[in-house]
Amino acid sequence: MIHPSAIVSPKARLGKDVSVGPFTIIHDEVEIGDDSVIDGFCELGYPTPLAKGQPLRIGARARIRSHSVFYTGSRFGDGLVTGHRVTVRENTVAGLNLQIGTLSDIQGDCTIGDYVRFHSNVHIGKMSTVGNFVWIFPYVVLTNDPHPPSEVLLGCEIGDYAAVATMSVVLPGVKVGRCSLVAAHSMVGKDVAPDTVVGGSPSKYICDTRKIRLKDGTDRPAYPWTTHFRRGYPAEVMAGWDLPPDSGAP
Amino acid sequence: MIHPSAIVSPKARLGKDVSVGPFTIIHDEVEIGDDSVIDGFCELGYPTPLAKGQPLRIGARARIRSHSVFYTGSRFGDGLVTGHRVTVRENTVAGLNLQIGTLSDIQGDCTIGDYVRFHSNVHIGKMSTVGNFVWIFPYVVLTNDPHPPSEVLLGCEIGDYAAVATMSVVLPGVKVGRCSLVAAHSMVGKDVAPDTVVGGSPSKYICDTRKIRLKDGTDRPAYPWTTHFRRGYPAEVMAGWDLPPDSGAP
Amino acid sequence: MIHPSAIVSPKARLGKDVSVGPFTIIHDEVEIGDDSVIDGFCELGYPTPLAKGQPLRIGARARIRSHSVFYTGSRFGDGLVTGHRVTVRENTVAGLNLQIGTLSDIQGDCTIGDYVRFHSNVHIGKMSTVGNFVWIFPYVVLTNDPHPPSEVLLGCEIGDYAAVATMSVVLPGVKVGRCSLVAAHSMVGKDVAPDTVVGGSPSKYICDTRKIRLKDGTDRPAYPWTTHFRRGYPAEVMAGWDLPPDSGAP
Repeated sequence: MIHPSAIVSPKARLGKDVSVGPFTIIHDEVEIGDDSVIDGFCELGYPTPLAKGQPLRIGARARIRSHSVFYTGSRFGDGLVTGHRVTVRENTVAGLNLQIGTLSDIQGDCTIGDYVRFHSNVHIGKMSTVGNFVWIFPYVVLTNDPHPPSEVLLGCEIGDYAAVATMSVVLPGVKVGRCSLVAAHSMVGKDVAPDTVVGGSPSKYICDTRKIRLKDGTDRPAYPWTTHFRRGYPAEVMAGWDLPPDSGAP
Repeated sequence: MIHPSAIVSPKARLGKDVSVGPFTIIHDEVEIGDDSVIDGFCELGYPTPLAKGQPLRIGARARIRSHSVFYTGSRFGDGLVTGHRVTVRENTVAGLNLQIGTLSDIQGDCTIGDYVRFHSNVHIGKMSTVGNFVWIFPYVVLTNDPHPPSEVLLGCEIGDYAAVATMSVVLPGVKVGRCSLVAAHSMVGKDVAPDTVVGGSPSKYICDTRKIRLKDGTDRPAYPWTTHFRRGYPAEVMAGWDLPPDSGAP
Repeated sequence: MIHPSAIVSPKARLGKDVSVGPFTIIHDEVEIGDDSVIDGFCELGYPTPLAKGQPLRIGARARIRSHSVFYTGSRFGDGLVTGHRVTVRENTVAGLNLQIGTLSDIQGDCTIGDYVRFHSNVHIGKMSTVGNFVWIFPYVVLTNDPHPPSEVLLGCEIGDYAAVATMSVVLPGVKVGRCSLVAAHSMVGKDVAPDTVVGGSPSKYICDTRKIRLKDGTDRPAYPWTTHFRRGYPAEVMAGWDLPPDSGAP
């Protein structure tokens, strides 16, 4: 299941039934869990001294799509799924079932919870802290330097279940609260309270998230999104979300 | 003309004089028209169950640049040209002579007219409808989810000859009118009337497009752009544009 | 030091101790200086008639990371460093020690000074002029067409030591002054005076750069950044910066 054109170091530790696609390079300091699929044109375990000798560790059942690059020194729980041409630098620790969309770039030294979804082309700056069940949409940038360029790095914090919509920037050190929503094309310069919607450049308070109604004909509240959106989460996880009986999600 | 390092399925249907570059992968469910050039490091016909068994169909005289990925299930008219590292998902139908710039990402289930130009790094969300002769500039995102994340997808509609300038977001379900212009760095939350310029975050009406003068010393109107811009369109197409005798376009 | 899977034209002129990674393609019209490292999956010297027969010239000690594409006709001083999946088109001339981040795209016909840093995913439009020691942060776009699409190209000018923060757009022909700062998520439609901070969409004057204090506990001025930031510059270059005795930079 390792394509003959792939270049896999004999020092790399691949689990059972790991498949490696054509023209992929796997360096020495790599561990990949069982039943994982690595597409073609990837480079895993790209060496960096910043990893301080730590390997790249990827859990079981990973799916890494083509042209992706992972450095040494980061660690991912089971169920990692990526799009194409993803870049992940060193020293990030991520939980279960992370999804990283096409062209997204995780810059390193980040802490990422369980069941997080990064959509396409997001940029997660160094030192970011991302909670559980967070959604980050295309072209969002989490920044870290309050007066660029400098050696001061203040990572953002994104709370559990929060969603940051497309083309928004979160400024250094800003905390986006649990279950909140940042509207599209916003520049978030102040902390966002839980369960609130902010938007604009610079962003301002818009409303409580519960005022937003689902445009599916039911007029239910759209937030917290766990009341209606289920795609891709295991049943045992959703059981804790207290889905209402009428949620009718697919 | 198929490089010996390329991996081309014997089931793929390649037309006459199709060239395939080094290290490119072409899967089973692919049809490519005559006289097409596929660069190196591409992957065409990336399998997905969402394509429901439909192949990837690319017309004649295509030019697909390096590191691009096309899924099964989409269909392109003759004359497709792409930049590097383009991603195209399933179930999109596009007309003649589409150009897709470097790093652009078409998410699937889109309808795209003839002679459309996507510049670099645009993100065309699922369910988008793009007319004929449309221009979308770098880092523009066409969105679809009115309350992300959800299962409700309201695609944008971009009218014929419209132009959306760089780093703008079009919100879900918004209609951008024929021959209109969205200024750079805008967040378009409302429908845009034909022949108007909007801009800002959120966007507002700025002026009629005909008030914008061409900065080439002639002081002609800059819109509709078909009165002065000709590069890359066939003569028989431009004949229908009623170019004024003084247009002097190169 | 040329990987056996690489495809290197015998006409390419590689200096001493140049290393070429797996699956990389180097075309005829390429010159690379001594002690350079080219990663895997790159394509250098991508042919274009727009280069008018000029080769791609890369100086000594270059480091080009994976999946990058350079066209013919551009020229780089010694010490070029790139991230992954960089694209560089034809007819750009850049000075010493340019850094180009992952996914960045230099569109061609640009003039770039010495010691410039392009962070990830920047888009440098055709005809841009970038001074020395400039910083451009992620998702910034330097534009050029005042009424897109047209044949009129008015390149931006970014002055020495200026910094343009993330997700900002600089409109065609705009001059960003020496030692100035463009805040994140700005749309810069007017010239920026030296030593000033502008921000917003559209951008407005915020303050003199000297009012911004360094958040490292020292309360020193954060600008000009050369007073405290040294990473990656050679000692003889920084000697000209007149670093204050208390700067204590790492």
